[in-house]
Amino acid sequence: MNKLWGGRFTKRPEQWIDEFGASIAFDQQLAQEDIEGSLAHVKMLAKCGILQREEAEAIQNGLLSLLEQAKKNELPFSAQYEDIHLNIEKHLIDKIGPVGGKLHTGRSRNDQVATDMHLYLKKHVQTIVSLIGNLQKVLVEKAEQHVETLVPGYTHLQRAQPVSFAHHLLAYFWMLQRDVERFKESLKRIDMSPLGSGALAGTTFPIDREYSANLLGFSSIYENSMDAVSDRDFIIEFLSNSSMLMMHLSRFCEELILWSSQEFQFIEMDDVYATGSSIMPQKKNPDMAELIRGKTGRVYGNLLSLLTVMKGLPLAYNKDLQEDKEGMFDTVTTVEGCLTIFAGMIETMTVNEEKMEQTTKQDFSNATELADYLAAKGMPFREAHEVVGKLVLTCIQKGVYLMDLSVEDYQEASDLFEPDIYEVLDPRTAVNRRNSYGGTGFTQVKLAIQKAKEIITEHVVN
Amino acid sequence: MNKLWGGRFTKRPEQWIDEFGASIAFDQQLAQEDIEGSLAHVKMLAKCGILQREEAEAIQNGLLSLLEQAKKNELPFSAQYEDIHLNIEKHLIDKIGPVGGKLHTGRSRNDQVATDMHLYLKKHVQTIVSLIGNLQKVLVEKAEQHVETLVPGYTHLQRAQPVSFAHHLLAYFWMLQRDVERFKESLKRIDMSPLGSGALAGTTFPIDREYSANLLGFSSIYENSMDAVSDRDFIIEFLSNSSMLMMHLSRFCEELILWSSQEFQFIEMDDVYATGSSIMPQKKNPDMAELIRGKTGRVYGNLLSLLTVMKGLPLAYNKDLQEDKEGMFDTVTTVEGCLTIFAGMIETMTVNEEKMEQTTKQDFSNATELADYLAAKGMPFREAHEVVGKLVLTCIQKGVYLMDLSVEDYQEASDLFEPDIYEVLDPRTAVNRRNSYGGTGFTQVKLAIQKAKEIITEHVVN
Amino acid sequence: MNKLWGGRFTKRPEQWIDEFGASIAFDQQLAQEDIEGSLAHVKMLAKCGILQREEAEAIQNGLLSLLEQAKKNELPFSAQYEDIHLNIEKHLIDKIGPVGGKLHTGRSRNDQVATDMHLYLKKHVQTIVSLIGNLQKVLVEKAEQHVETLVPGYTHLQRAQPVSFAHHLLAYFWMLQRDVERFKESLKRIDMSPLGSGALAGTTFPIDREYSANLLGFSSIYENSMDAVSDRDFIIEFLSNSSMLMMHLSRFCEELILWSSQEFQFIEMDDVYATGSSIMPQKKNPDMAELIRGKTGRVYGNLLSLLTVMKGLPLAYNKDLQEDKEGMFDTVTTVEGCLTIFAGMIETMTVNEEKMEQTTKQDFSNATELADYLAAKGMPFREAHEVVGKLVLTCIQKGVYLMDLSVEDYQEASDLFEPDIYEVLDPRTAVNRRNSYGGTGFTQVKLAIQKAKEIITEHVVN
Amino acid sequence: MNKLWGGRFTKRPEQWIDEFGASIAFDQQLAQEDIEGSLAHVKMLAKCGILQREEAEAIQNGLLSLLEQAKKNELPFSAQYEDIHLNIEKHLIDKIGPVGGKLHTGRSRNDQVATDMHLYLKKHVQTIVSLIGNLQKVLVEKAEQHVETLVPGYTHLQRAQPVSFAHHLLAYFWMLQRDVERFKESLKRIDMSPLGSGALAGTTFPIDREYSANLLGFSSIYENSMDAVSDRDFIIEFLSNSSMLMMHLSRFCEELILWSSQEFQFIEMDDVYATGSSIMPQKKNPDMAELIRGKTGRVYGNLLSLLTVMKGLPLAYNKDLQEDKEGMFDTVTTVEGCLTIFAGMIETMTVNEEKMEQTTKQDFSNATELADYLAAKGMPFREAHEVVGKLVLTCIQKGVYLMDLSVEDYQEASDLFEPDIYEVLDPRTAVNRRNSYGGTGFTQVKLAIQKAKEIITEHVVN
Repeated sequence: MNKLWGGRFTKRPEQWIDEFGASIAFDQQLAQEDIEGSLAHVKMLAKCGILQREEAEAIQNGLLSLLEQAKKNELPFSAQYEDIHLNIEKHLIDKIGPVGGKLHTGRSRNDQVATDMHLYLKKHVQTIVSLIGNLQKVLVEKAEQHVETLVPGYTHLQRAQPVSFAHHLLAYFWMLQRDVERFKESLKRIDMSPLGSGALAGTTFPIDREYSANLLGFSSIYENSMDAVSDRDFIIEFLSNSSMLMMHLSRFCEELILWSSQEFQFIEMDDVYATGSSIMPQKKNPDMAELIRGKTGRVYGNLLSLLTVMKGLPLAYNKDLQEDKEGMFDTVTTVEGCLTIFAGMIETMTVNEEKMEQTTKQDFSNATELADYLAAKGMPFREAHEVVGKLVLTCIQKGVYLMDLSVEDYQEASDLFEPDIYEVLDPRTAVNRRNSYGGTGFTQVKLAIQKAKEIITEHVVN
Repeated sequence: MNKLWGGRFTKRPEQWIDEFGASIAFDQQLAQEDIEGSLAHVKMLAKCGILQREEAEAIQNGLLSLLEQAKKNELPFSAQYEDIHLNIEKHLIDKIGPVGGKLHTGRSRNDQVATDMHLYLKKHVQTIVSLIGNLQKVLVEKAEQHVETLVPGYTHLQRAQPVSFAHHLLAYFWMLQRDVERFKESLKRIDMSPLGSGALAGTTFPIDREYSANLLGFSSIYENSMDAVSDRDFIIEFLSNSSMLMMHLSRFCEELILWSSQEFQFIEMDDVYATGSSIMPQKKNPDMAELIRGKTGRVYGNLLSLLTVMKGLPLAYNKDLQEDKEGMFDTVTTVEGCLTIFAGMIETMTVNEEKMEQTTKQDFSNATELADYLAAKGMPFREAHEVVGKLVLTCIQKGVYLMDLSVEDYQEASDLFEPDIYEVLDPRTAVNRRNSYGGTGFTQVKLAIQKAKEIITEHVVN
Repeated sequence: MNKLWGGRFTKRPEQWIDEFGASIAFDQQLAQEDIEGSLAHVKMLAKCGILQREEAEAIQNGLLSLLEQAKKNELPFSAQYEDIHLNIEKHLIDKIGPVGGKLHTGRSRNDQVATDMHLYLKKHVQTIVSLIGNLQKVLVEKAEQHVETLVPGYTHLQRAQPVSFAHHLLAYFWMLQRDVERFKESLKRIDMSPLGSGALAGTTFPIDREYSANLLGFSSIYENSMDAVSDRDFIIEFLSNSSMLMMHLSRFCEELILWSSQEFQFIEMDDVYATGSSIMPQKKNPDMAELIRGKTGRVYGNLLSLLTVMKGLPLAYNKDLQEDKEGMFDTVTTVEGCLTIFAGMIETMTVNEEKMEQTTKQDFSNATELADYLAAKGMPFREAHEVVGKLVLTCIQKGVYLMDLSVEDYQEASDLFEPDIYEVLDPRTAVNRRNSYGGTGFTQVKLAIQKAKEIITEHVVN
Repeated sequence: MNKLWGGRFTKRPEQWIDEFGASIAFDQQLAQEDIEGSLAHVKMLAKCGILQREEAEAIQNGLLSLLEQAKKNELPFSAQYEDIHLNIEKHLIDKIGPVGGKLHTGRSRNDQVATDMHLYLKKHVQTIVSLIGNLQKVLVEKAEQHVETLVPGYTHLQRAQPVSFAHHLLAYFWMLQRDVERFKESLKRIDMSPLGSGALAGTTFPIDREYSANLLGFSSIYENSMDAVSDRDFIIEFLSNSSMLMMHLSRFCEELILWSSQEFQFIEMDDVYATGSSIMPQKKNPDMAELIRGKTGRVYGNLLSLLTVMKGLPLAYNKDLQEDKEGMFDTVTTVEGCLTIFAGMIETMTVNEEKMEQTTKQDFSNATELADYLAAKGMPFREAHEVVGKLVLTCIQKGVYLMDLSVEDYQEASDLFEPDIYEVLDPRTAVNRRNSYGGTGFTQVKLAIQKAKEIITEHVVN
């Protein structure tokens, strides 16, 4: 069979150049979406009287039968027919004869491929939102178990102030919640039908774009045909949202890796998410956390790739746009995989509460308490800071902690100190007293858990 | 004067290392936001009884006086005081004495700098939305003048089908409209107060975060203190939205540059937006369009920079985060400048309607009409395509256009052709008949202009 | 069979998590390199007396047999054995029994995988250098045919000064020559053996790293075992060099696309490298040039991905490093494919000399000649520029070119003009007179072709 | 004064658009290079008889006087004259009259700006090579003090095998050595003169490009004028090399930050390179290490920016290229600053040898020794690994280390164990026995230090 667009050409392309230009190797992932799009298109053509009822029925039946095969991965594809659209069309014509050629009336591959991708991405963004919800749910459950588990809060990777471990976990809940918001908002621009925009200018056939869009479950349709066929914003936005999500996961992974080290020993990963070493049998490596952190690079790269492809591209369709797909598929696979693994990692990890709490007692992270103590008694904060700084220095030189200094030591530094300071220095008190809204005080953390639970109700998979 | 945090240290840092670490060279752009944030904070401290009325008044008066100076660019800054926060505090204490030190009660530089950036970005995103609206307005006005101006529509930079020039311009209107949507949606996450989150854990003082947020005009407050001080999503989201906007502008610039070439001659840039050559006096270079296209790189780079900074960063604040600002400032300046220039470029450019229309007649972009003609008469589309492909080849070999073939020529190719084909081949007919929703038919374009006008009403600067 | 590192673990990992973590899906591309590396390793172990002669022979024979299978793509791989190394080891043990386990003596997967990748990349960088050489050869041949073909030289996409088409083509020759230099220089760092570095610290066995390196054809060995197993510079450098190469190709593609447009009509792509449209039969799209331009994004993305992966990674091996491979494989495939296609595109394209030359006469690109003419007669260049600028303006207002003005017109503008200016204004004269070294004068261009031919002799595939 | 290229234009550009397009705000950093380039150019013009001796002398004197002013930062610049070239020319003409206009004979701003950047970058790359050498020197000195200091070697941030701290430090030496190689190799392409390439096509004046290149100290000249003015490879290559360097520094910073934590306590940063907290007086934050890690993002971003700018840009000069400078300047400042700070950080940091060594005894990082012990006695490595894995598991369950098991325990696991195993388990033995080339054995490390010292002799600043 000739290339479908080959009438104008006098030479036979060599096969491997065809393969270099062909997209079927990857766009076959759109097989179902392509057939679903065609089903809606042919129904619309019939409804508008552009095809005759019998023609439409023949095509529909052919497509339905192909859809069954596609679902079972039984449709063979060939680079000879370049892309998913021409492969499907070839199968259709083989099955039902030349009438299959009428399916392409009133559309072009340009609006067809855009339709496929909108369908594909809508489905996967919805899945991703559910998977994030699922991870959030796991986080909230873990948080609920650890409201009163103390852990050092770090800045600059130095112990700064003790916090509730639940509070720390919930910081990620809120990052993920922003991811949910962004993915949901992006749906507005994904859930739009380009179908019926033709090659770039619309069509002369009396089509009904609203009708086919409704059949496909789209919420709206593109307003401008040239925009519709050349727009890839919806994919870039997906890649950007995925990059932020992966960035969040990479930060969490970094912490899980630190916490799993012999130096921290705050958590232990379940064996399922860890691996050993071929040469060092004692190792228990937090492999999955490292791998997810590493996969951040891949998603950033996919974002940049498409931004580069689109830079300076004139309207309307250009072949460069074929490069929009692999990064999208790869990102979907990566993000869905990472989220699923992540929920499992968090759910199954063992939290070493004792080690965490013990750590909060062996440092100066209660120093801020002293400064606040003095400030509350009227000393300007900068001055209080100076006084406490000197006390810490004294401790370091003596090799003791703040708890170990005597009342006399304190009163020598400032006569505002009174014996109630030991209560203030206790990490548990320190945490609990940070009761400002959104702070780490236990009451606040419990309220936050309540709020988090309400929020996830809407988007979690049950 | 000592470093404000210097109590613990025994050595004097050398000056240039200080300067390498200092941010005052660039964060002084946040001077007004920093003072406004402090004003809200001190009012809140007084309202909550944490500061005494007189203390608060002294601080407020001092801040108001500094704000006046800042607005006039009369506040000197020094790398000795590291960042904008310590510079302002130093000025305050110099002005009102040690009581100025009480301003910092119940907050930290970590929540303070986050507050400044939220205030800054909220203001600029609103400006950017207005500037996009303004460009959209100019586009719609230009489109209104060119509903019936024909121009070739291109795919693969080959003339494909003629379109209304208004239709082409409106494709950019809709791209920009997605930018508006994204920027507006991002405001939800920018317009949030981190103030009162302290260093990372909240504070022991009985502060009222809602109150200070209201004073600053924020719509909501961060739910988690650790998230509040380490979140830079709102900046990344801004950079990502800006990257997409710049990508759109780069595509438009590419077209403006093509259209300005001697080969196209579709438009002429106003002298204000073009430049000459120091060695080639005849040149009129579309400099501004090239420069804006080039500036896309800068914004992509800023996005990537911050994504890189944030990758794998553990909670909560780390000094790496200081690298969040310059890319944000640079992007604001770039985007605001490009949008302003762009509106001017479009408004003042001369459209060479005659050349455009003439071009639509000297090619085969009416070939699709023939194929549609045959399909409408019942020939399967793929077959029609084959027939027309051969007719085009005939023309090329004869050195004529489709209009020049005789009825006999046509009927030899297919007996479905009738004398009405010449009407069909006219580009004006071709454009006008593409009357599907969102297509280039004049009726559709007029409807689209109407719709566009309604949309921009809400966000354009008047 | 158990996971090979499973002794320490009490739970069975679920299969799909294994698959998520496994690399066999892509690192099977390293099968041959892995076996070759093992062959060298086992020979070294025998030579150093670490394995007995018969053990080594058994292993060698087993490996040679696996190598045959690998070359025929007859080795099955399974995610159960995680990666290429464990898959090969499993096959080996199945084939020759437990003695196969001795192969891993004195090495680790960390130095093993690094060795595989160095072998792989060395081979492919050499191929790429040859393919660039081949493209350069085609360019020089094309240039030789077009030394005296005139074409407008553009700046700002405005016609600036006419040039020899050969000169234009040779600009790409020199870009490619820098690519050759960079790839060759990078070989110094690719052609190095990490084998024998163990997991990170070297090994206690009396191995001979020089010996195994020699067997593998490596020019040098890594000096530090921790660096050897955690270094991925050589891949980043490859990706960076590939990005610059693709950037060059993208610039050339942009020009090929412009030149193929109806507006320029400077060249016609051979049918093999162009495609048609499913809906517009007259189209002949320069698809391959667009696709290659688009593929630039993919390579940039791969570079960024690995830079992101490596950012902030502590020593030595981390699982994140597994993400180093797919981008490398993808870039190799992309670059090798693009170079091959490109040579074919250039070789087969038709150059429309007449249209090019005609174009050089219908513009003001000879204006610089006038300015140089005046400057040569002693007028300060800036003044000459001003005079000519006014003459061009006059022409534009009159609708004529510089050739069409009378001697009187010229002398009115400056009395330095004499009748010999018409000779000066001829584009052919203009080109030929730019005879400064590296300029477009025909003599220079011929010399450049000579030089280019000498240079490529060393690296072209014959 | 009019815009210098303004003759052709009829309208006055509004000032702020000028400023948007002007580059003087940043390219004034090239003032000295620009004047030096002009000095060489005018000498060449005189030597070739293109300018008269007196004209050339007047220009030379004027330029020399401007150079003095430039060195003292006493030259004022204005956006009215767009860029550094026109600003300098304006100053020259103001100083010496209209003859100053003759300086521009036989060159264009296109080759002029390229020359300036080549001069600038050559100088700075040489400085950077010296600064890397200086850091390498500091590393070697530190390593010499710590050949026998034991520290855990990590993979997956899990303790894997103990290593010499010197060995760990030297891993960075070799990374930096590759940076030196790459920067030096890049000089070949930086140290090239584009001067005399004109706007794009060369010039009609009988110039001598070799002569001016020699005067400027360039090693070679560009072979093709179109390439010369549009090539920005040399900057991209610089940005790529800088990105790899920053990646190396970011890895080192990550380790310094980890080692400074209370959990590791391996090192203490000197006060000069650390900062305190405004609210937590006990903190000693490794600020400089964090900042340098963060600055990696900026350099990656600069690389990507320029790659984006260049993508798909047709020949020759386009205004987009103006975007090449800021990222280059910013990267130079960043890299030079980071390298200087880094040498100081390493030189002054306190190494806690005791804590490091103690750490190597409290884990299972000697487990590999056992496996090697068994393998050396003939057990297949995979089997040995299995045996040791079980011993480790036993220890963990008992809460002891491998040193604590009895000979009987060992012999129960395998009868190959003998009482000499306790010697084998000692970390110091373990390190010292890894004496393979490039391994961590003390003899190897001392040899490596020797080799390193020889290498740096060539490029270190004394």
